[in-house]
Amino acid sequence: MTGSGRDGPAPVALIGLGALGGSLARALRALPAPPPVRAHALEAADLGAAVDEGVVDSAHDNVADAARGAAVLVLATPLGAEEAVLAEAAPVLAPDALALDVGSLQEPALEAARAAGLAARFVAGHPMAGSEASGFRASRADLFRDATVWLSAADECDDHARRRAERFWADVGARPLWTDAEPHDTRMAVVSHLPQVVANALSHVIAQGGFTVADLGPGGRDMTRLAASNPVLWRDLLEHSGPQVAALLRLLGRELDGWAGVLDGQDLDTVLRRMEATRRWREP
Amino acid sequence: MTGSGRDGPAPVALIGLGALGGSLARALRALPAPPPVRAHALEAADLGAAVDEGVVDSAHDNVADAARGAAVLVLATPLGAEEAVLAEAAPVLAPDALALDVGSLQEPALEAARAAGLAARFVAGHPMAGSEASGFRASRADLFRDATVWLSAADECDDHARRRAERFWADVGARPLWTDAEPHDTRMAVVSHLPQVVANALSHVIAQGGFTVADLGPGGRDMTRLAASNPVLWRDLLEHSGPQVAALLRLLGRELDGWAGVLDGQDLDTVLRRMEATRRWREP
Repeated sequence: MTGSGRDGPAPVALIGLGALGGSLARALRALPAPPPVRAHALEAADLGAAVDEGVVDSAHDNVADAARGAAVLVLATPLGAEEAVLAEAAPVLAPDALALDVGSLQEPALEAARAAGLAARFVAGHPMAGSEASGFRASRADLFRDATVWLSAADECDDHARRRAERFWADVGARPLWTDAEPHDTRMAVVSHLPQVVANALSHVIAQGGFTVADLGPGGRDMTRLAASNPVLWRDLLEHSGPQVAALLRLLGRELDGWAGVLDGQDLDTVLRRMEATRRWREP
Repeated sequence: MTGSGRDGPAPVALIGLGALGGSLARALRALPAPPPVRAHALEAADLGAAVDEGVVDSAHDNVADAARGAAVLVLATPLGAEEAVLAEAAPVLAPDALALDVGSLQEPALEAARAAGLAARFVAGHPMAGSEASGFRASRADLFRDATVWLSAADECDDHARRRAERFWADVGARPLWTDAEPHDTRMAVVSHLPQVVANALSHVIAQGGFTVADLGPGGRDMTRLAASNPVLWRDLLEHSGPQVAALLRLLGRELDGWAGVLDGQDLDTVLRRMEATRRWREP
């Protein structure tokens, strides 16, 4: 009931052992003085694999058991689960516990922390790392190495919690950078959620043409890779960013229409000019 | 006037030393019995670098000088240059010379070969390899290793030329597969040209939002990578596939519109179902 009961680093409760949670478990285990990690995950296979590989210290059937007495709580669940997990964990955490997430969108995460009464010690984190692969078997100890992690917190979050959050992410090799939740989430709608949905829509069009992944070259493979992303994670994200992403999709649709006109009209000078412009943007 | 004048493999004339031509030069040089390679390239820097690195035997100021007496002619130029190069090379090649290209679209390549009187010994080749990177410095000896190379030829192409083309590509590590030019080109409009233009259009939308490549995560980077592709190569390809690609872009535009409606309506079940469908297609 009082954490690990051993000396040394304070115990971490880790909720969720997918690609991100599993990678955190591995990265923590690789530290010179690894903290004890108490884990809970809905996917029994992920939890079992993490225990079998020795990257967590104990597996727990529910959030409260994992979180009890923990000094650091890390949520690596789909965004939609955060509010319930925080509500279950809040009463049993150590009094000065730090709470973190890897949920990607920060306004809803901060909202969930506020609802659980944890706003003063919750720091939202969005590691710019990971891939379309999901589950514990996609986890890697070096996933966060040199990755930017966007941090944000409520105004009432205390400085000590902020400093601990920075240290937590730096310890696992990441580069924590502070941002504000609202512009962060708007940026993600453009640079992450829009490309995700485009990959799904493009894959659908290629699939409807009767083609398979084996028909793709390296470019086509890259452009459809995200279509293999975890639908549950994305449902939760798009629940929040949906209207922004919808507006962006319509903007892109108009851009594609413009391209269609240029191509139908054999306007090759415009093809060249547009491609030169995006090339300069992509490889400045 | 009679090829290399040495014993051993017959001389190859290589026109173009960008990423594909340069990779061919490197792969040929790495063979147990490398053929002499006579090269011409419009980009003096590429030609100079290939000579300096010793991956071609001689550099020539024009196509005819490089092609004179060659037993194999390989075109690694933008598609739009093929007709002129074949016309210049045809009169000076060895009598039974084989002619190849890496031009990607095969109907226009076969047309250019027919115009030059080379249809009986021209085999169009499309290696499913390469990236957005261009120029000799993007070349690699193993670029074709295990890559499918789609081959097609005119009906009047003789069997000997077909067998030699297969061997040429197998020698550099590729897997040559025969196809028909028309369905090949239609397939490429869907699996290659459509994703290319989508990458350009998506990059434009992200750039217009005021974001840079540094704002992208791994997914956004993959989805915009092709925007750095060589505009000249693509202008030539889209000159031919333009109307097909335009129709596909309009199809994708309607798909994006559908997604926008789903997201605006917070229809999360449909989000989940669509993502599960494309995930099954992408990772069967």
